[in-house]
Amino acid sequence: MSPFDVEEYLKQKRAVINLALERYLKHCRRYPEKLYRAMHYGVFPGGKRFRPILTLAAGEVFGGKQKCLLPFACALELIHAYSLIHDDLPALDDDDYRRGELANHKVFGEGIALLAGDALLTEAFHVISEARVLRLLKPTLVLELLHEITQAAGGGGMVGGQVVDLEAEDHEVDMATVENIHGRKTGALILAAARVGARIGGARPKEMQRITRYSRFLGLAFQITDDILDAESATCTAGRASKKKEEKKATYLSIAGPGAARDRVSNLLQRCLKEVELFGREADPLRGIVHTVASRVS
Amino acid sequence: MSPFDVEEYLKQKRAVINLALERYLKHCRRYPEKLYRAMHYGVFPGGKRFRPILTLAAGEVFGGKQKCLLPFACALELIHAYSLIHDDLPALDDDDYRRGELANHKVFGEGIALLAGDALLTEAFHVISEARVLRLLKPTLVLELLHEITQAAGGGGMVGGQVVDLEAEDHEVDMATVENIHGRKTGALILAAARVGARIGGARPKEMQRITRYSRFLGLAFQITDDILDAESATCTAGRASKKKEEKKATYLSIAGPGAARDRVSNLLQRCLKEVELFGREADPLRGIVHTVASRVS
Repeated sequence: MSPFDVEEYLKQKRAVINLALERYLKHCRRYPEKLYRAMHYGVFPGGKRFRPILTLAAGEVFGGKQKCLLPFACALELIHAYSLIHDDLPALDDDDYRRGELANHKVFGEGIALLAGDALLTEAFHVISEARVLRLLKPTLVLELLHEITQAAGGGGMVGGQVVDLEAEDHEVDMATVENIHGRKTGALILAAARVGARIGGARPKEMQRITRYSRFLGLAFQITDDILDAESATCTAGRASKKKEEKKATYLSIAGPGAARDRVSNLLQRCLKEVELFGREADPLRGIVHTVASRVS
Repeated sequence: MSPFDVEEYLKQKRAVINLALERYLKHCRRYPEKLYRAMHYGVFPGGKRFRPILTLAAGEVFGGKQKCLLPFACALELIHAYSLIHDDLPALDDDDYRRGELANHKVFGEGIALLAGDALLTEAFHVISEARVLRLLKPTLVLELLHEITQAAGGGGMVGGQVVDLEAEDHEVDMATVENIHGRKTGALILAAARVGARIGGARPKEMQRITRYSRFLGLAFQITDDILDAESATCTAGRASKKKEEKKATYLSIAGPGAARDRVSNLLQRCLKEVELFGREADPLRGIVHTVASRVS
């Protein structure tokens, strides 16, 4: 039995997701041209596609079909994309760059960037409502998933986390606050991504609990590795114009120090692996994802 | 048979809608406090509640039950509320005031206002997904309505209209462009409000066509009366700080002149009445709404 090639898996799934996102955005071509371009710029080329891949990986553990998982995977990525556009605006993080490219508002202006974010968020729910989904999944399940996603993305989840983050600026914050911010701002959507996939796959309650814990630990570990990588790149490129406000923010790293941060990542990822230990080979992608997060900072 | 008292009807429905909105916002109290307050400020005291009343009125023509209509009526109002918060931001209209009170960002800051808008939009879809809806309406109908609402609110509707509006600033625009902006920016959501109500009520295809035309004409007439009222109030309070960018915008009024604008309103409203002529006394609220729009500028 050949070992599982996680890099190949991620590459393949990323291609599948990008194709699906292009397909969903295609119908936005009839929107005002500048809006369409700003929406597209917010979604492509995109990053790791971490959330939608998690939806596919968690769903496929339980036999979920890719075509049933994709609309939700894409909706979650659209929500992620909108949040990044709004987060970069001067009113929030005031970042000129995103993934090495100019931020949306630096290309299209603040007004269009704001509206492109609004349109992407609305589009996410449009994708979920798409008639074709109805034939793939039970409508009641679709509505339950919509319930879960709106909870994760809204004031009790991601948006709430951005508020706590914004209010923590220029304040002394402790570890509990940092983990609270992480848990909401990035954790809630990562949690929803995995849980939605597992529910579509038909996971049973005990399995849902495992997936829930797996993705909670994974989300936190992912965020701490982000902080570690950010700190390292800030050291390498001191004086750059981007991440203006980010640099002032307290992170797990800035409070606990690099050693403890790495220990925390390692501990969290071990707990992830433990949660999916009893699942079969179908969970190899979930294990592989854990290893890729670990390798980011090793 | 006593004549229909539209003022009493509107007052009553407004109270019902406000109660329902308060109920939906109650669960947002567990969000970060400042976010909750900004969301609440964006929804209350609110304005005429034109859109949700239209949902109730159109639904009740066909026997739709108020408790089935309310979640959608409220979702549409939440979407309207978010759009006003974002619209007032400096990146868009840069208005310091809304309905005579300080704009959301003047009270809570731009960052919180932006996020409160995001949270309200997300909340709208959360309301639609609420489990209780499932027992009132068929899940497939809920998803169809979600489809219609996301289409009306997104890049092909309201948000798209805001983009066209933004791009038209400081440009010569013609009547077709103004009606295009109106049709998308305010018309799409008004159209959806009436159609969603009628669909929940069980309107048949021919009836849906009438409701569609009724609400299209009504939405345009409503917007033109808004422009007329704005122009009159600007004359009365020249030099005020609000509506900074609005004043530079081309409107139906500024292009066609006040006489033609009033004629257009009157013509549109007559067509509204014609569309609902064959409906019974149950359509009195829809007729009453037409008369209130007419009386705004008479």
